[in-house]
Amino acid sequence: MRWHDAAPEGHVTSAGHIDDSRPVVPLPKSDNGSVKSFRKELWFEVPGRRAFLNITSEVQTCLRESGVRGGLVLVNAMHITASVFINDDEPGLHADYEKWLEKLAPHAPTSQYLHNRTGEDNADAHLKRTIMGREVVAAITNGKLDFGQWEQIFYGEFDGQRNKRVLVKIIGE
Amino acid sequence: MRWHDAAPEGHVTSAGHIDDSRPVVPLPKSDNGSVKSFRKELWFEVPGRRAFLNITSEVQTCLRESGVRGGLVLVNAMHITASVFINDDEPGLHADYEKWLEKLAPHAPTSQYLHNRTGEDNADAHLKRTIMGREVVAAITNGKLDFGQWEQIFYGEFDGQRNKRVLVKIIGE
Amino acid sequence: MRWHDAAPEGHVTSAGHIDDSRPVVPLPKSDNGSVKSFRKELWFEVPGRRAFLNITSEVQTCLRESGVRGGLVLVNAMHITASVFINDDEPGLHADYEKWLEKLAPHAPTSQYLHNRTGEDNADAHLKRTIMGREVVAAITNGKLDFGQWEQIFYGEFDGQRNKRVLVKIIGE
Repeated sequence: MRWHDAAPEGHVTSAGHIDDSRPVVPLPKSDNGSVKSFRKELWFEVPGRRAFLNITSEVQTCLRESGVRGGLVLVNAMHITASVFINDDEPGLHADYEKWLEKLAPHAPTSQYLHNRTGEDNADAHLKRTIMGREVVAAITNGKLDFGQWEQIFYGEFDGQRNKRVLVKIIGE
Repeated sequence: MRWHDAAPEGHVTSAGHIDDSRPVVPLPKSDNGSVKSFRKELWFEVPGRRAFLNITSEVQTCLRESGVRGGLVLVNAMHITASVFINDDEPGLHADYEKWLEKLAPHAPTSQYLHNRTGEDNADAHLKRTIMGREVVAAITNGKLDFGQWEQIFYGEFDGQRNKRVLVKIIGE
Repeated sequence: MRWHDAAPEGHVTSAGHIDDSRPVVPLPKSDNGSVKSFRKELWFEVPGRRAFLNITSEVQTCLRESGVRGGLVLVNAMHITASVFINDDEPGLHADYEKWLEKLAPHAPTSQYLHNRTGEDNADAHLKRTIMGREVVAAITNGKLDFGQWEQIFYGEFDGQRNKRVLVKIIGE
């Protein structure tokens, strides 16, 4: 896994790929409740086909950078074979998810899916991502993720071995 | 499929049904970051029981009409047997979805569902919509949908042959 | 079921447990479109393992208290074995959901899940909550939930017999 924050001018990053993300543009801060918005991309490259990555601390960093004290944060996969979801950071549960998703939407035989006639072998990844969800919306209160005790944000990869992005969008005051 | 935008005064539309939608009321534009909100309904009538319709361009039109440059857009089904979701605009995949949803939540025999004792035959549509999701929340950056390369917004109909609505709600600055 | 609104100073509530919720802090009202945010917790204790509770009227109360006329409301479970979702308030359908979720993610045998080696028996509750969803985002228009005719908000409990919370977060103007 490699992490790439938004590169303000579209430069080649140290990891060697072109980062086409747009710059982070927080609006001017003010005290009178004017609305602020903020965006940042998180980049991943998972070595295998599937993985769950805890991205909670990266989202918390975005909150600090945004200066938003109260509002909403949207965290979504920008790819249609990946998920962002909230659940427990417990390895046994993650193994249960993997087995369960494979039962509900098996990868093989790949010929069972019409989508794979396009030359892909990732139809199951589209279905698995559908069950796990594209996005989460979380509350920001007092500048922090307004979470219950066990809530953690995960990136769910179902068709890895390539660079993929998550968008963090914040709106509030 | 017929499309009906919000009718400002609740008139009978050209398609012959009563449009009870409320008017589009964007707030005054300003440059100082004050919050704006916007709403619009999209209307559908799918001839068969099930269909997936790409509504991305209609949502983009809402963005332009709203004047919002940065913020969030919520797109949700206003009916409980329909979905709004983001995935690939690839017909093979849509056929895979259809087959997969029928496996996970079969329509027949309709007597397997208690809900159908109410006189409906659409219990499976409630379950299919649950898997595909009621809504999406997407980021707006520089006045546009802040999307990955393959992200497209779909309306998923699971109990068609009647007029149904999707709500587009925009908030931002 | 017991309901507990946010306790402003963290006092022990009449139900005898410590309410650690933070106070409701709506921003000052104004007419110029400045952004407002609002939060409140709803507390539940379901006597059995699973239940669906209609929380629409409680969310509507939050809207009134917030003073927000146009915007978005996020309603999310703060626990990872519970859901918030929108569907029909029809008991037959709820029984169908129960049966269907048990088919897709059975509770027993509990030994089939690695997560249960942690001493829990609720792995299935994590999976059921995943299908039903953690959260809903709904539009607020003219101070009200901008809903279709049959949309109702439910709390879905899959591992009850303990105090659990739902967060209501409102942002708008």
